[in-house]
Amino acid sequence: MKKIAIDAMGGDNAPKAIVEGVNQALAEFSDIEIQLYGDKEAITKYLKAEKRVSIIHTAEKIASDDEPVKAVRKKKQASMVLGAQAVKDGKANAVISAGNTGALLAAGLFVVGRIKNIDRPGLMSSLPTVDGKGFNMLDLGANAENTAHHLHQYAILGSFYAKNVNGIANPRIGLLNNGTETTKGDPLRKETFELLAADDSLHFIGNVEARDLMDGVADVVVADGFTGNAVLKSIEGTALGIMRQLKSSIQAGGLRAKLGALLLKNSLYDMKNSLDYSGAGGAVLFGLKAPVVKCHGSSDAKSVYYTIKQVRTMLETNVVGQLVDEFSKKGDADD
Amino acid sequence: MKKIAIDAMGGDNAPKAIVEGVNQALAEFSDIEIQLYGDKEAITKYLKAEKRVSIIHTAEKIASDDEPVKAVRKKKQASMVLGAQAVKDGKANAVISAGNTGALLAAGLFVVGRIKNIDRPGLMSSLPTVDGKGFNMLDLGANAENTAHHLHQYAILGSFYAKNVNGIANPRIGLLNNGTETTKGDPLRKETFELLAADDSLHFIGNVEARDLMDGVADVVVADGFTGNAVLKSIEGTALGIMRQLKSSIQAGGLRAKLGALLLKNSLYDMKNSLDYSGAGGAVLFGLKAPVVKCHGSSDAKSVYYTIKQVRTMLETNVVGQLVDEFSKKGDADD
Repeated sequence: MKKIAIDAMGGDNAPKAIVEGVNQALAEFSDIEIQLYGDKEAITKYLKAEKRVSIIHTAEKIASDDEPVKAVRKKKQASMVLGAQAVKDGKANAVISAGNTGALLAAGLFVVGRIKNIDRPGLMSSLPTVDGKGFNMLDLGANAENTAHHLHQYAILGSFYAKNVNGIANPRIGLLNNGTETTKGDPLRKETFELLAADDSLHFIGNVEARDLMDGVADVVVADGFTGNAVLKSIEGTALGIMRQLKSSIQAGGLRAKLGALLLKNSLYDMKNSLDYSGAGGAVLFGLKAPVVKCHGSSDAKSVYYTIKQVRTMLETNVVGQLVDEFSKKGDADD
Repeated sequence: MKKIAIDAMGGDNAPKAIVEGVNQALAEFSDIEIQLYGDKEAITKYLKAEKRVSIIHTAEKIASDDEPVKAVRKKKQASMVLGAQAVKDGKANAVISAGNTGALLAAGLFVVGRIKNIDRPGLMSSLPTVDGKGFNMLDLGANAENTAHHLHQYAILGSFYAKNVNGIANPRIGLLNNGTETTKGDPLRKETFELLAADDSLHFIGNVEARDLMDGVADVVVADGFTGNAVLKSIEGTALGIMRQLKSSIQAGGLRAKLGALLLKNSLYDMKNSLDYSGAGGAVLFGLKAPVVKCHGSSDAKSVYYTIKQVRTMLETNVVGQLVDEFSKKGDADD
């Protein structure tokens, strides 16, 4: 039985969306057990599942504007912190939250803890491509600064994830750079390129440019946290901006435009859907001793369901356990 | 009379698109004189304008895949290099090319030369916002690495451009960062934040996130060349990816979708147009002794026309001359 701790109070639509996602996941998967952390009364209102689910009541929670590190240190009874603590105590195998991202990163680092020999866990998410297959990118902003050694570790983490969770036999690893030529980039990129090219365990395909990400140039894209964060937010902002622009143009276009939009509904829906990549689950704080996964703050029940499904696959394939073995060997070799 | 040197042989559609853009600009503006550098026979084929235009024949040109610095050093008779040389020799006031970007950067730096006390000229372009006003961003990739001092200079350069060319009285300067809080970022961002906040000549509005750029949060966005390049390419890649996705979905949607697209033509055109920001001109290699401006490689006649218009405004307002004065004072003050 895979035991998953869930912060029922995190995100804009908590606890409703969280609990409804849990109902759906429990109905679908018979090999998972869910622990819901939060306000018992509020949770009970939406909880339909009866088996393999428990509620651990707590009145405390971390707000979206709480200072992350301070909140995790002081609010020891917060639903998110109790969920992380359950993983540390061996009562749960993974933790999910749609709450304050910084606080979940802090809870992951301080409570769950890093895998031995991994220096800086990175935030990894699946992003959309035009062909619908998507790609994984990390670090998306868990760190403001990274070394080439960190980026090398991200390549290994991403490769393990793509193999185990996405089922890609030989994942293509790309290094985000300011050009595709091998000599491109600043010293960080040049040093990382050397490390990735020299690692025979990786299928390193070289530098990739942000322009080509949506074309699916790589299965895993490695970036420092600052650039990864900027790229993620640029993609989000551009997609939302285009959607908003189209919507206002349709509204201003009168009956003719509205009729056109109606006829084109499926295509517009396809377009919107291809950008909504919640089917791939949440963002993994990768490099920790257990899966710690962030649902988007605006997650609906469907997103929560997909994140539980993603975590179930991570536990099923034991991708984190494999990483623990892999990096314990690396540590010995480096000594 | 404003004298503009133009590389007639650069870009995918040269010399046709270049010369047609020149025809249009000469018909529109009576205070400009154009010098066309390139193959005389090929240029003559498209040239309609008779006054205020001259052709300086050369058979040599820089290819899009030439190694930039080597090409500029060795191909001394290339159309792009001759254009830059004309500026250096005082025969022209500005140079425009749609050719190899790296080579134009090199020609700008080595032939036209930096403004005294400006350390690292940056590549600046206007990017689209949902409200159609746009914003300027630099450095978009002239440099792979920047210091806080460079970023401070970019803020000053961008502010001067927004005032003079965009006519914004008090341009809002934003620092691209991984969050809007004042304490965000890596050491480079933190140091830059201090410099910008302490400069009373700037209307510094603080940190901005890539997610909000299309909403027009700032008139000038300052970034290091590596991140700026990644953000620019992310925006381009996402916009193109969405367009392609919508197009293929319409094609697959049968008669109904095609009819919808027909009715929605104006709205879809609006959407496409709002992303096509060629009306704002080309990318300026800013910080040089004269305007050196890059048209997109795929520029059509309209883009070339708008770039000539932009350069004319730069010359009319003497924005570069003002910068020369401004930075000569700074140099004295720093001594």
